[in-house]
Amino acid sequence: MEVKSLTEQKSLLATLSPGKRTRLRRLLFEFGPGNGTLMLLPIDQGIEHGPRDFFPNPASKDPEYQFRLAAEGGYSALACQIGMASRYYPDYAGQVPLILKVNGKTDIPSSADSFSPCNASVEDAVRLGADAVGYTLYVGSPRQDVDLAQIRQVRADCERYGMPLIVWSYPRGSAIDKKGGKDSFYAIDYAARMAMEMGADVVKLNYPKLGDSDKDAPAPYNELQVDQSEAVRQIVESAGRSLVVLSGGSKVDDETVLGHTRSIMRAGGSGVIFGRNVWQREWSEALEIIEQIKETLLTNVSRIP
Amino acid sequence: MEVKSLTEQKSLLATLSPGKRTRLRRLLFEFGPGNGTLMLLPIDQGIEHGPRDFFPNPASKDPEYQFRLAAEGGYSALACQIGMASRYYPDYAGQVPLILKVNGKTDIPSSADSFSPCNASVEDAVRLGADAVGYTLYVGSPRQDVDLAQIRQVRADCERYGMPLIVWSYPRGSAIDKKGGKDSFYAIDYAARMAMEMGADVVKLNYPKLGDSDKDAPAPYNELQVDQSEAVRQIVESAGRSLVVLSGGSKVDDETVLGHTRSIMRAGGSGVIFGRNVWQREWSEALEIIEQIKETLLTNVSRIP
Amino acid sequence: MEVKSLTEQKSLLATLSPGKRTRLRRLLFEFGPGNGTLMLLPIDQGIEHGPRDFFPNPASKDPEYQFRLAAEGGYSALACQIGMASRYYPDYAGQVPLILKVNGKTDIPSSADSFSPCNASVEDAVRLGADAVGYTLYVGSPRQDVDLAQIRQVRADCERYGMPLIVWSYPRGSAIDKKGGKDSFYAIDYAARMAMEMGADVVKLNYPKLGDSDKDAPAPYNELQVDQSEAVRQIVESAGRSLVVLSGGSKVDDETVLGHTRSIMRAGGSGVIFGRNVWQREWSEALEIIEQIKETLLTNVSRIP
Amino acid sequence: MEVKSLTEQKSLLATLSPGKRTRLRRLLFEFGPGNGTLMLLPIDQGIEHGPRDFFPNPASKDPEYQFRLAAEGGYSALACQIGMASRYYPDYAGQVPLILKVNGKTDIPSSADSFSPCNASVEDAVRLGADAVGYTLYVGSPRQDVDLAQIRQVRADCERYGMPLIVWSYPRGSAIDKKGGKDSFYAIDYAARMAMEMGADVVKLNYPKLGDSDKDAPAPYNELQVDQSEAVRQIVESAGRSLVVLSGGSKVDDETVLGHTRSIMRAGGSGVIFGRNVWQREWSEALEIIEQIKETLLTNVSRIP
Amino acid sequence: MEVKSLTEQKSLLATLSPGKRTRLRRLLFEFGPGNGTLMLLPIDQGIEHGPRDFFPNPASKDPEYQFRLAAEGGYSALACQIGMASRYYPDYAGQVPLILKVNGKTDIPSSADSFSPCNASVEDAVRLGADAVGYTLYVGSPRQDVDLAQIRQVRADCERYGMPLIVWSYPRGSAIDKKGGKDSFYAIDYAARMAMEMGADVVKLNYPKLGDSDKDAPAPYNELQVDQSEAVRQIVESAGRSLVVLSGGSKVDDETVLGHTRSIMRAGGSGVIFGRNVWQREWSEALEIIEQIKETLLTNVSRIP
Repeated sequence: MEVKSLTEQKSLLATLSPGKRTRLRRLLFEFGPGNGTLMLLPIDQGIEHGPRDFFPNPASKDPEYQFRLAAEGGYSALACQIGMASRYYPDYAGQVPLILKVNGKTDIPSSADSFSPCNASVEDAVRLGADAVGYTLYVGSPRQDVDLAQIRQVRADCERYGMPLIVWSYPRGSAIDKKGGKDSFYAIDYAARMAMEMGADVVKLNYPKLGDSDKDAPAPYNELQVDQSEAVRQIVESAGRSLVVLSGGSKVDDETVLGHTRSIMRAGGSGVIFGRNVWQREWSEALEIIEQIKETLLTNVSRIP
Repeated sequence: MEVKSLTEQKSLLATLSPGKRTRLRRLLFEFGPGNGTLMLLPIDQGIEHGPRDFFPNPASKDPEYQFRLAAEGGYSALACQIGMASRYYPDYAGQVPLILKVNGKTDIPSSADSFSPCNASVEDAVRLGADAVGYTLYVGSPRQDVDLAQIRQVRADCERYGMPLIVWSYPRGSAIDKKGGKDSFYAIDYAARMAMEMGADVVKLNYPKLGDSDKDAPAPYNELQVDQSEAVRQIVESAGRSLVVLSGGSKVDDETVLGHTRSIMRAGGSGVIFGRNVWQREWSEALEIIEQIKETLLTNVSRIP
Repeated sequence: MEVKSLTEQKSLLATLSPGKRTRLRRLLFEFGPGNGTLMLLPIDQGIEHGPRDFFPNPASKDPEYQFRLAAEGGYSALACQIGMASRYYPDYAGQVPLILKVNGKTDIPSSADSFSPCNASVEDAVRLGADAVGYTLYVGSPRQDVDLAQIRQVRADCERYGMPLIVWSYPRGSAIDKKGGKDSFYAIDYAARMAMEMGADVVKLNYPKLGDSDKDAPAPYNELQVDQSEAVRQIVESAGRSLVVLSGGSKVDDETVLGHTRSIMRAGGSGVIFGRNVWQREWSEALEIIEQIKETLLTNVSRIP
Repeated sequence: MEVKSLTEQKSLLATLSPGKRTRLRRLLFEFGPGNGTLMLLPIDQGIEHGPRDFFPNPASKDPEYQFRLAAEGGYSALACQIGMASRYYPDYAGQVPLILKVNGKTDIPSSADSFSPCNASVEDAVRLGADAVGYTLYVGSPRQDVDLAQIRQVRADCERYGMPLIVWSYPRGSAIDKKGGKDSFYAIDYAARMAMEMGADVVKLNYPKLGDSDKDAPAPYNELQVDQSEAVRQIVESAGRSLVVLSGGSKVDDETVLGHTRSIMRAGGSGVIFGRNVWQREWSEALEIIEQIKETLLTNVSRIP
Repeated sequence: MEVKSLTEQKSLLATLSPGKRTRLRRLLFEFGPGNGTLMLLPIDQGIEHGPRDFFPNPASKDPEYQFRLAAEGGYSALACQIGMASRYYPDYAGQVPLILKVNGKTDIPSSADSFSPCNASVEDAVRLGADAVGYTLYVGSPRQDVDLAQIRQVRADCERYGMPLIVWSYPRGSAIDKKGGKDSFYAIDYAARMAMEMGADVVKLNYPKLGDSDKDAPAPYNELQVDQSEAVRQIVESAGRSLVVLSGGSKVDDETVLGHTRSIMRAGGSGVIFGRNVWQREWSEALEIIEQIKETLLTNVSRIP
């Protein structure tokens, strides 16, 4: 079975309220590459994994490291939880935009019934001067009923305050594990659509991993013949007018980092959100890869937001 | 055992508050066939099934496709979730009425304990200029306690804002599976009555599938000798004054589409809500079947709403 | 072990607030038999059992049937759920009082953990001009914690609005099944007391079925030697000042209907609430049994409400 | 291991707000024995056990019996649930103070996960003219999370309205069963402290039963050598400034009733709350034992409240 | 694998709102050692363990003992639950600051799904004149979703009222038991970071116990070669700008008490919170160890708060 392409997506910004438009334009055009793309620095691994990710570069354990990197590296925005935002962001206010991640959890218990509870509010984001809110949605989790009810409130508050909503859209839980797994094309494609349907302004997606497990996915995914770049193009389309940023995951070599960046941009994506791949590097090396990512975003843009 | 017919149902509109009447009249008389019937286009498959339903007609993946089809095909209304309504409806405001579907979920986890959480509010519908609200009720699910408490709030808000309530009334869950299944006459008949009892203005029902599993249903269903058209007539009666629209399901041939349409209209129904059977077709073919459905609705009406 | 009788109960009306007294007097003295008794017509079987109860008399499927019967038969009140009350009661407003049943559920899932969620509010009852509210309490269900919290709110709202509270007090769930079952003297007696303790103005009870299963009930019930009439007298006493009405159940012969009516009245009860035993009959037969029930209530009253 | 005594507890009344002090003084000094002790009559057995406790004295089934007994016997207060308080207390208002028990449940389901939901509010108590609120806390139940959240609200409302809080502090549930049982010294001692920690003004405790099961309790309880009177003294100490009243349980002989009363008073307790031991007796016998209990309270007081 | 040190943490007080700063300065500079360290006395063992901890020193069972000790021993603050704070703190108001512990539970049920429900509010703390609020977070518990939602509200209320938030950050539950246990370096290190991420001003941590179970922890913890002092230094770093106080646990010898105190202070911690190690001693012995702890805090301070 062959898949075909859509016509070009219309502008997202054109559909946004003044508050959302003001704030999202700040990320797209006033900070970061500045050409309508997003280069985001996440530092929520401390809550999601504990301090273990900081060992490869002990300096990264001090939140100052990421805040300074985001400001000096010229990021579109930095994303973190309420504790760090309250204690470390004040020193960088105005130097780099803030995305307040409003939910999160430890990875100590099993992820079979994943759900990420809110530990902060959209009002907290407003109070702290943040320019967007981040929310992790566990698509297809057996506890989706609680998750969808929770994102409803966050979305409504975002509309009320004119705050852009960025959804970390992650397939997760025991049910998706039986249908090809959380990294399959089917799973990521569903996650892209789901975030759009829930009202995301920007969707953060993982890079799909094609492979044997796809045969456990529902038709027609179980028999699709697509390569990586086509799969990436498809998931960007599934997000519709919502902007797509690709997330990284554990540290890989430079060429993979830049290759993935090119891949998402050519597919119509709007940027990347790499954490460990950046701040697990020593300061000068980190600035170096940041420069290369930025260059890739500047030269591979294919969509007007 | 033989079953007999009721006297004709009285008017629904006569019982409605000014707000509900104004909005529902818009769907019944100002848009669509315009003769008091409903031709509705649903595009909630993206959340309920993921993007898999868009592969047969890749153009359908872009929500523009359905919105344009609804406007140009002359639909009574289009039904979708909050994300699509927020991003795509503004371009079609005034051209086709909107039904905001306020609950939904992925079909990744098992449906044994089905429950569909609200991801939007009746207030969202008011704000977006919608003319009705859609709600999926999983009749007989082991989690009906949560579902019924949730629809109570939606119904009350609909009354408060004069917003018509359309109930997707679906038997679902492990318990109905043991009593003849979700498509049995017993199940659909119960679903029709249940929606009416919960205050639905319009009920969306599936076409009952008569067969062997009916023998597992409670008496007298387990020994009824009814044919399809009689069964359809019965379920329409069970909905009382609530208007009934028949839903489609996966794509079937033209004759089945039109046959089902005739069947529901002759039974006293008020229209159809076919999604995949319409938008999984290429543009001109889609317009063609739309025309035929409309013609069928115009020529087979048997009830004054 | 022998059981003895109480002194006569004091008046219930004397203890009620003006709003409750006004409304309950309407049921007791202005409609129905009019001598301080209650002849109630329930039509909540559509939600509790689905349409299956309407097959013996197809005309009964149209809610008009019961409303017309209640008005023309001279009932004290008709009890139904929100959907029917909204669509059918307006035509009969002022002709027969309305009891809005505020909770209900399908009987598709198992009743092991019975709980009946509210699908309407006391405010709905006020808005619709109802004269009482009905609530089903599943006495002894493993989910009694949710049930008791829910009835608390209904009771408080009833007090706030001066609305009489009628409790369908039904032993139910896996725990009572192990202690003699839901129809045992122990179970019904407990249900009577429980409703009174929760603030019921009127209690609807099932007729106790004495038999072998009583030996599984706690002492002294497991060794009591009481006959039916004594058991009925006891459960009426257990309800204290709350008025007791006996419910019917599935259709039985005329003599049983009238015998049960005499039985509850002689025991100090205040009336009956028979549904299927009345509206499963063809129109003229229904009016006939109604007349006989009314006569029985008029001639067997033993308590001043 | 030997245990030693504390210095005398300071006054509770001295720490109370004006509202609590006014109401609690009424129970301690204006009604009942009047010497700063509490003689309380509970009639919540109808909800907790059903009518079975009334068979030994059928007259006790009519709530009038207990209200009249409380008024004529000169009790400090009568404790009951909302239904009885609403219907029967009005006739006795001003003759005997009322304690409104705000939570309760049937004992039909298993007590492994005990939780007693609120069926009335502190506002109900204020409205009814009650002088205190009663709350059952199931110490150590697997559902303590819900229980502690619920008592928090009751306590806060009691503070808001100046209403004394009397805690029925009962060890209960599958966990305590494995650690010596609900009647062990360990369990009762923990319950005493817990009630104090949760803000009880008065604690109702059961009489500890020393025995073999104590060896399953945590150290040092599993090896303590204490007699009954020492154990009672200890639990009174564990309640700190909170006043302690001893509860009765099923009916025992006169000497045990009076012995327990003496025991709690000599240990620094403030009174007793005996139900079945009083109202399961015929009227004159009941008045007789009441007189003896009152005499014991008057002659054995050892603590200034 | 070797781990390296961070640069010195910046000041916490500099980031706090006026209300938090005022109150926390009171603990750091006006009471206790007064040099920017914290010497805290906890008396929440009565709720968490029952009275069993009071047997070694029976005088400690009377809450007066700890309050008097805190005031006369010159503590920075005393931490207790609402019941004790309401009844015993008034006599010591102004003599020693109060930390109101707002959640707690008995340890009777299993700790596999630990969750500690709130039994008091931040408003209670304000009303009682407390200078901080204490909250127990069970890091990694299967019920973290409820816990994180609860601490969100407490944190938000603390911000609203300018009340410092002290988090008892305890790894707990069945999941952490399988990954090295609640006392492993991995677990305590995660707990330190988690408390900071959730917005703690001060974090209370247990002393990590290095040992065999570390091999079950995730990489790189399973192969780290660190000694105790390095582990303590690491966990202090993981808490970032949040101040760290070390908790004690069951009673140990004097040298261990003082050694742990030196250890946490040299690692950049801000003090200690020892309960049983202090108040399980007879009065004069208790004052003696208090003096030694205070001396240690005065001479080993290495961080400006």
